[in-house]
Amino acid sequence: MLPGFLARAVEVLLGREGRSLHLKAAGGATAVLAVAMLLGSWAVVDAEQGAPRANLKTYPQALWWSIETATTVGYGDFYPVTLGGRLIGAVMMVVGITTYGMVTAALATWFVGREQKRRHHLAHAARELSEETAHALHERFDRLERMMAGRSEER
Amino acid sequence: MLPGFLARAVEVLLGREGRSLHLKAAGGATAVLAVAMLLGSWAVVDAEQGAPRANLKTYPQALWWSIETATTVGYGDFYPVTLGGRLIGAVMMVVGITTYGMVTAALATWFVGREQKRRHHLAHAARELSEETAHALHERFDRLERMMAGRSEER
Amino acid sequence: MLPGFLARAVEVLLGREGRSLHLKAAGGATAVLAVAMLLGSWAVVDAEQGAPRANLKTYPQALWWSIETATTVGYGDFYPVTLGGRLIGAVMMVVGITTYGMVTAALATWFVGREQKRRHHLAHAARELSEETAHALHERFDRLERMMAGRSEER
Amino acid sequence: MLPGFLARAVEVLLGREGRSLHLKAAGGATAVLAVAMLLGSWAVVDAEQGAPRANLKTYPQALWWSIETATTVGYGDFYPVTLGGRLIGAVMMVVGITTYGMVTAALATWFVGREQKRRHHLAHAARELSEETAHALHERFDRLERMMAGRSEER
Repeated sequence: MLPGFLARAVEVLLGREGRSLHLKAAGGATAVLAVAMLLGSWAVVDAEQGAPRANLKTYPQALWWSIETATTVGYGDFYPVTLGGRLIGAVMMVVGITTYGMVTAALATWFVGREQKRRHHLAHAARELSEETAHALHERFDRLERMMAGRSEER
Repeated sequence: MLPGFLARAVEVLLGREGRSLHLKAAGGATAVLAVAMLLGSWAVVDAEQGAPRANLKTYPQALWWSIETATTVGYGDFYPVTLGGRLIGAVMMVVGITTYGMVTAALATWFVGREQKRRHHLAHAARELSEETAHALHERFDRLERMMAGRSEER
Repeated sequence: MLPGFLARAVEVLLGREGRSLHLKAAGGATAVLAVAMLLGSWAVVDAEQGAPRANLKTYPQALWWSIETATTVGYGDFYPVTLGGRLIGAVMMVVGITTYGMVTAALATWFVGREQKRRHHLAHAARELSEETAHALHERFDRLERMMAGRSEER
Repeated sequence: MLPGFLARAVEVLLGREGRSLHLKAAGGATAVLAVAMLLGSWAVVDAEQGAPRANLKTYPQALWWSIETATTVGYGDFYPVTLGGRLIGAVMMVVGITTYGMVTAALATWFVGREQKRRHHLAHAARELSEETAHALHERFDRLERMMAGRSEER
């Protein structure tokens, strides 16, 4: 049931076709992080179970540990001691850091885009100027042709 | 009194209409982080009170813990042990990381904007060139019309 | 054998000439980080060996410590206690943070580039407009010359 | 002697007028971080001295603590326990994070600038096209004037 719900959440976040890449990437990474934290919390208790100095023994503890780990806070109240648990932890660290990088990059893209809208207006102005110039030159040609036609008739 | 003061601080930081989005976002996130740290320090002591192995018991300790947590340093000298305290901690971590992401993105936007000013000059130069061209072509038309008018008269 | 393999990995990641700077930098930094973590894990055990309160004594422990350190999680289950070990740790922290900065910056560059493709189309449109204008003006000249030639003949 | 040397280092890093804002900001922040770490290590030992459960007692320990703190690793082997020491720690965390933010933003600006050079070429091409158009139109005017002059003479 849980994986089904999560797959759905990812789908919802990734499925909107009209959105920009940076929004999709940041949303997708956040969804992957949430899945990694939920699955990792469950898997780490399983991996640590029975290890002599294990301190990650219950699911609520493991969920709190996954938050500490993905945010790189790492108080040291809980940490894995087995190879399996440490592999899960390493994945969670990397996914967490990558997600924050994606969110930061998406924010930067959003800010830069907003700032560039002003430059956009400038580009539009340049285009309008170019159209105006072309129009004025065509009018000069029209006038010149009328002058020539007039001289032909007056003869 | 404290919430009133904080609401005012947020207002001051967000209220300047003329500022760019990235400055407002970075300033607003910093204000939200400050509020989260002050309110969180107060709430975490309340949540931890009475828990058997609680180590967050006084307000100065909780304020120091909130700094450690929001910056993701996490020495492990203080950490929450109750569900309520851990929820407060999780919010503080996420708010802290998002704030640093916003500040980094705002810095990037500021730097990129400065670098693009040079390109701005280039765009202006292209526009001036376009205006010069239009002006020169109009002068050629004027001369051509004078030539035609002169020939009409000489006849 | 290990350094040879790593040198090869760096070469593969850096050697693709056609890739953009930001992809090469992010890939290169990741490769340098992997090398720093593998070499550092090996060197730190050597440095810590024999220190009275050393806790980094085996290679698997040291590798786990290098992951914790490079991601800035730092649970505190393992840490260097000698000058040599701490120097290795400091290098690993700086390399780790710089790598995440490079990855974040590369993501931002990728996102910004994607967003600017739309503006690219606008620039292309402006260029086409300019070519159309030039073509139309040349046709007006052709017509004017035909008119003058016609008048010469009719005389 | 130390402050004099550091002031000099800041001067050297900030003094190059020709450099871009993002390089100056990243260099300056790194210099400020180095100063904060050196001065903070010295000040924190002074602040912690005499506190009952102090663990930061010697300069080498304090310097290692300042590295752990500024990089937000925070193993928890050393941490301040006095108000003064914690204030110094808080400043070091904020300066550290801001510096990494500046470095990340500077990297993004560098990458984005490199990517935009290609677009630069496009802008140059558009400018050259515009100059070519103007030149061609002037030649048409020259030819038209020669035609008119020729007809005047032939009469």
